[in-house]
Amino acid sequence: MNYNKVDSNHLSFFKSFLSDAQIVSAAAELHKFAHDETEDLVYFPDLGLIPNSVEELSSILNYCNQNQIAVTPQGARTGLRGGALPVHGGVAVSMQNFNRIINIDEDNAQVTVEPGVITQVLQEAVAAKGLFYPPDPASKGSCFIGGNLSENSGGPKAVKYGVTNEYVLNLEVVLADGSVIWTGANVLKNATGYNLTQLMVGSEGTLGVITKAVLKLIPHPKMNMLMLVPFRSAEDACKAVAAIFKEGIVPSGLEFMERDALVWTKDFINDDSIVIPNDIQAHLLIEVDGNHSDVLMNDCEKIMSVVEGFDIDDVLFADSEAQKNTLWNLRRKVGEAVKSNSIYKEEDTVVPRYRLPDLLRAIKSIGEKYGFTSVCYGHAGDGNLHVNIIKGDLSDEVWNDQLPLAIREIFEHTISLGGTISGEHGIGLVQKNYMDIPFNSIQLDLMRSIKNVFDPNQILNPGKIFPD
Amino acid sequence: MNYNKVDSNHLSFFKSFLSDAQIVSAAAELHKFAHDETEDLVYFPDLGLIPNSVEELSSILNYCNQNQIAVTPQGARTGLRGGALPVHGGVAVSMQNFNRIINIDEDNAQVTVEPGVITQVLQEAVAAKGLFYPPDPASKGSCFIGGNLSENSGGPKAVKYGVTNEYVLNLEVVLADGSVIWTGANVLKNATGYNLTQLMVGSEGTLGVITKAVLKLIPHPKMNMLMLVPFRSAEDACKAVAAIFKEGIVPSGLEFMERDALVWTKDFINDDSIVIPNDIQAHLLIEVDGNHSDVLMNDCEKIMSVVEGFDIDDVLFADSEAQKNTLWNLRRKVGEAVKSNSIYKEEDTVVPRYRLPDLLRAIKSIGEKYGFTSVCYGHAGDGNLHVNIIKGDLSDEVWNDQLPLAIREIFEHTISLGGTISGEHGIGLVQKNYMDIPFNSIQLDLMRSIKNVFDPNQILNPGKIFPD
Repeated sequence: MNYNKVDSNHLSFFKSFLSDAQIVSAAAELHKFAHDETEDLVYFPDLGLIPNSVEELSSILNYCNQNQIAVTPQGARTGLRGGALPVHGGVAVSMQNFNRIINIDEDNAQVTVEPGVITQVLQEAVAAKGLFYPPDPASKGSCFIGGNLSENSGGPKAVKYGVTNEYVLNLEVVLADGSVIWTGANVLKNATGYNLTQLMVGSEGTLGVITKAVLKLIPHPKMNMLMLVPFRSAEDACKAVAAIFKEGIVPSGLEFMERDALVWTKDFINDDSIVIPNDIQAHLLIEVDGNHSDVLMNDCEKIMSVVEGFDIDDVLFADSEAQKNTLWNLRRKVGEAVKSNSIYKEEDTVVPRYRLPDLLRAIKSIGEKYGFTSVCYGHAGDGNLHVNIIKGDLSDEVWNDQLPLAIREIFEHTISLGGTISGEHGIGLVQKNYMDIPFNSIQLDLMRSIKNVFDPNQILNPGKIFPD
Repeated sequence: MNYNKVDSNHLSFFKSFLSDAQIVSAAAELHKFAHDETEDLVYFPDLGLIPNSVEELSSILNYCNQNQIAVTPQGARTGLRGGALPVHGGVAVSMQNFNRIINIDEDNAQVTVEPGVITQVLQEAVAAKGLFYPPDPASKGSCFIGGNLSENSGGPKAVKYGVTNEYVLNLEVVLADGSVIWTGANVLKNATGYNLTQLMVGSEGTLGVITKAVLKLIPHPKMNMLMLVPFRSAEDACKAVAAIFKEGIVPSGLEFMERDALVWTKDFINDDSIVIPNDIQAHLLIEVDGNHSDVLMNDCEKIMSVVEGFDIDDVLFADSEAQKNTLWNLRRKVGEAVKSNSIYKEEDTVVPRYRLPDLLRAIKSIGEKYGFTSVCYGHAGDGNLHVNIIKGDLSDEVWNDQLPLAIREIFEHTISLGGTISGEHGIGLVQKNYMDIPFNSIQLDLMRSIKNVFDPNQILNPGKIFPD
């Protein structure tokens, strides 16, 4: 597919209904439209546009659709897969001005929100009314709800409360031709036609641009308890994960961190609040929440009896809100810490949780074969392991030539365990050429045909999801 | 779209790989393929086929696709919307022999099941392992999991635990051309391409035929408490529903029954275990569940303090398992009782739950305008009200000519409240000509185009969902 470059005629059209502040063309200013949080990739658009309304966005899409101009929708650009990179140039559309929480409907426990609202801002606004919006990616302080919807984001709470798509009731979407639809209704159950809502969630901006979302809220749990459990074997830590669920406990957080993940993060943020003995290979960070302290104590006791069946060191129970924040902050900073430590590639593997030990073993074995080290951490409770492959002292040649083969082996093993290649980060640009591993040509053709239904001219976020 | 009738050549083909017991052609035997639980509608297929394997089903579909023969997939034929009726003749394919629970995976809390397994059979099999599959339509003792998937069924537990689609991880599907795909992976979170799984759920057999499902399970709650609350005003009962949630309580059942629903059912099943005073206009049946009796008692006390704010009579607390069963049986038999009482039309309205009183008022007002009575009941906790419009003494002329106008008015009002026209029963045959109310031509065209992607020859369950 070829796309037209934005020229002076096109620019004149955009100037006819957008203010100067809404049009970005100077290279210095365009830089922020050219990258997200994916490695060090940079792709400049011809033009950055910042619509203020559904009508303006509709006009932009309609025009680009008629003039075969690539359009890359952008949220906060915190994605890790290049999903927001304008790889075909054209227009990058920032949704940053769609930043209103339109209505917190306490009577129905729903919120109507624009896509440019920061996730944590939404969470705090509804929490002030006693309501809870659980999905909380590590970037919650800066990412947008629109990006969460587009990537079907998860986060630590997903293990108990589910990922983004489980909270979406209805979406307002501008289609490629500029027409505007709602995908469903503002209801908790819906058996009325095909589920356009769930088709849109996780479609990474390739099927339409979300302009409003009606999200389900639940009562906010009143309290939680948090513990950090050090294991002398990383595989044991993985095994303990499934064992906790088999006791009938559903923790509100169940995070795995390999030794290096925590050590590097302590160094990165200069945190010496916890000591990690030399023989500790991994930690589980385990949270339970609810409304009754005796129930939570009971859950914690059951968890203790499970983890004590493995070779562990002393368990740390957080004894204050400050200590809870310290521990969660350590977990949330792991990604940044790894990034600061070395050139790396992060994979977002997910398997049925009981298969985590198998997955970890395979990753280490593939690493030995190809000569790389890795640091693994993630949302073990739902089988989602972030695999950070470290460049370290590897030559550029090995890194560039051998790494794709190694990743392919990791993904093939992930699929063989019943898993898939992305749990919550999406496919975007950098994973698209692995999509032949989870899907065969029949499945990919179905997806491509669905794409053609929504966007026959292929203007929306081209170059993403589908293999070259 | 025209379809070919099944002729002797076609029959010979089917006989080449199916046994006599798998081919039904005699009119007397074909009758069971000709109806479901929708009113008294009867549409005979040319032929009934009962495949035993994915390979046989694939051959049937591939052949029908090449020969333009309509195919109507059928489960237990307990649907209420005519979704399983072979309105274009052709082949009716019964999934009754796909009746294996393939694997209860306790380690990962998942079950792999074929579509012909009865819902209650599945529930009891996993409950024996301490696991819980919550979706439980009133027909759970006879309906199939495949039908539940195709209609995105709900039931009383949905208010706390969600409807069918929230438990589906992965589906094996035979497409119209006979090819076989899996829609996703066996994982709790998935950000890998478009969500084909959720597109398939609720698509009523129009996009493919489900042959295996991997379903999520959760720990089975250890206990529950049940109460029946009589209200002197039906609107008050509706208002109490949202008020209970605003207290932070999420009941595991919150059912509304208008006076006549319960009175008729008591008569229908000759149950005199409860007495309904003359001034009682509606009941709420409220269940809470969990693992700690003191927590449930606390929930019940909070619920009592809410309902005592309305004009109620004495609350009945079920004091034994037998009494719980009696009360739930009364609730589950309402549909049959109404059906036995009069010719009727049932609508499956759903609104945000706080809008229930508005919806009930509008239904009664529209009834007065058109001269019909109605009996309303349903899953009030998630805003899902089943509206049974009673023919009673109405003339056939009024019934046939005026009723569609009245239903249209009810649905328009439902949409205006943020709701839609089916919460859990689907659209099927009998609701399809109301689909222009929730959706405009852009939305319907998107759905039709998706249908064309999956089934370009329109052989799968033709005559359903889309308006004529």
